[in-house]
Amino acid sequence: MIKIYGNSDSGNCLKVRWTAERIGAAFEWIELDSFAGATRTPEFLSINPAGQVPAIVLADGRVLAQSNAIIVHLAEGSDLVPADSYDRAKMFEWLFWEQYSHEPAIAVRIARKFFMGQSDADLDPGLLIKGNAALARMELQLSKTPYLVGQVMTLADIALVAYTRAAHRGGFEIERYPSVKDWVARMEGALGLSPLPAVQG
Amino acid sequence: MIKIYGNSDSGNCLKVRWTAERIGAAFEWIELDSFAGATRTPEFLSINPAGQVPAIVLADGRVLAQSNAIIVHLAEGSDLVPADSYDRAKMFEWLFWEQYSHEPAIAVRIARKFFMGQSDADLDPGLLIKGNAALARMELQLSKTPYLVGQVMTLADIALVAYTRAAHRGGFEIERYPSVKDWVARMEGALGLSPLPAVQG
Repeated sequence: MIKIYGNSDSGNCLKVRWTAERIGAAFEWIELDSFAGATRTPEFLSINPAGQVPAIVLADGRVLAQSNAIIVHLAEGSDLVPADSYDRAKMFEWLFWEQYSHEPAIAVRIARKFFMGQSDADLDPGLLIKGNAALARMELQLSKTPYLVGQVMTLADIALVAYTRAAHRGGFEIERYPSVKDWVARMEGALGLSPLPAVQG
Repeated sequence: MIKIYGNSDSGNCLKVRWTAERIGAAFEWIELDSFAGATRTPEFLSINPAGQVPAIVLADGRVLAQSNAIIVHLAEGSDLVPADSYDRAKMFEWLFWEQYSHEPAIAVRIARKFFMGQSDADLDPGLLIKGNAALARMELQLSKTPYLVGQVMTLADIALVAYTRAAHRGGFEIERYPSVKDWVARMEGALGLSPLPAVQG
């Protein structure tokens, strides 16, 4: 049985849960409140010295960190990883892009605005610009294909939907990106998720 | 023949060159000066809409971006990608960590300080803290194993050495991390690279 250490408010952690559920892996979810310092205890640091969730402990006791590395490992050989070499490479392109160009803007703005209650005036204006550029790039692709890599859902969709579906919590207007909005609904359907409610202004 | 669009001052681009050389791929290198806007021309944007190098054009004309996605694609099936499933997952863990926790601090500080000539006072102090944390994490691993994933060189080493060997250009003191320093020398030997000269203060 795999142990998943995660925070249910974190898209990076939810990616791992959704992938594990989708492939039918048996797992135990251990909830850690990273906002309250639960990932910085000596006990957890002995599991993941980086002090970050998600981290998983495999059945043999070995540990793996980094959300996208974890989902790639879990989903290896499943239909979430394209068999075609080029399609698989495009999946990885989106996964690396997510961690570099999407998460640091959209997830960070969600965390600061929605979870930490910071006002717009306190936020780096670059976050909004960078986040909208990321959404525009997704729109460009999703206006052409139903999923990021093409005709079928891959890990790229699972990784990207985690924070995209919550983008309104970060002050992003998802309505400006109609193909992204449709894709979020499609992904929520596939993963059995209810849409996140609008934020009360 | 693969075309590689890159900037020889960019570690992200050099990763791709080194991987292609290491696996013996035939390639044409097309130098683009991204600092001078060469990645924002209509011609290049038609190749990579993200306006970033590296990007490669495969023999069949299809395009791939994101340095780590490119090297994974090029090196698939080679000895740079571990055959063991867990070791391969650890390689991916380092690759994703590099783009999230190493490059945005160390490469950014190198670019601003060395290439753009900004003074320390103009730099976000968080870059130095985050970069040193990244080097400390590498030191922790490399004090135990000669390469990041274990006993043999993988793509994780190629990806991480690109900016780590230039860290002094960003004002980082590599001497504080003796195992990292030894590993840089080992990697430069393996890749046939001369050490980068000290920066004149």
